[in-house]
Amino acid sequence: MAESRWTQSMLLDFYGELLTEKQRECFDLHYNEDLSLSEIAEQLGISRQGVWDNIRRAESAMLEFEEKTGLIRRAERTKRALETIRKQAEEIGTLTRGRAHDIARDILDEIEGLEE
Amino acid sequence: MAESRWTQSMLLDFYGELLTEKQRECFDLHYNEDLSLSEIAEQLGISRQGVWDNIRRAESAMLEFEEKTGLIRRAERTKRALETIRKQAEEIGTLTRGRAHDIARDILDEIEGLEE
Repeated sequence: MAESRWTQSMLLDFYGELLTEKQRECFDLHYNEDLSLSEIAEQLGISRQGVWDNIRRAESAMLEFEEKTGLIRRAERTKRALETIRKQAEEIGTLTRGRAHDIARDILDEIEGLEE
Repeated sequence: MAESRWTQSMLLDFYGELLTEKQRECFDLHYNEDLSLSEIAEQLGISRQGVWDNIRRAESAMLEFEEKTGLIRRAERTKRALETIRKQAEEIGTLTRGRAHDIARDILDEIEGLEE
């Protein structure tokens, strides 16, 4: 693993579709919907231990995907660069008028478009 | 699959580490090193058919990873945005002097840094 610890929702966003449906469901209900193990067990009609096993296996599989591919790490690096560029474009916007100012605005729009 | 066809080397770059070692090796030697099936078979000490099966399974597994996660598609979208921003920063560079010009230069450096 790298310097930072990936959040559960980031792992699910990147690798959730590689899990079994049950693993994804348990993991999502627990970490994103904040349901307790008992609540998930009741909702899915499986044992509390079964829910826990699915969550643990899901997390371990996703951490392994990240360890092998480094794709979240890579995306995070790009995200930090875009955040830097956003600030730089904002500063250009305050320093310029006319065409250069408009282009700085376009850069900000381009970055915003990526977040949708 | 999406609008564009992912190149073999892009698939390997993103998902290669999720393959078995043999699959990755066969795929890499065939598509990146441009070796023939017979050459790979000889080098790895397996049958020509075995090489072919590994390549086919590797490709099918990686296409499935991409179909499920869309991570190459996502990265390509970011790459296109960065290419647009690069052109915009270059244009600002030609239109400005002083501080705004320097910051436009910094944006280009930031984008270049991501490509290393």
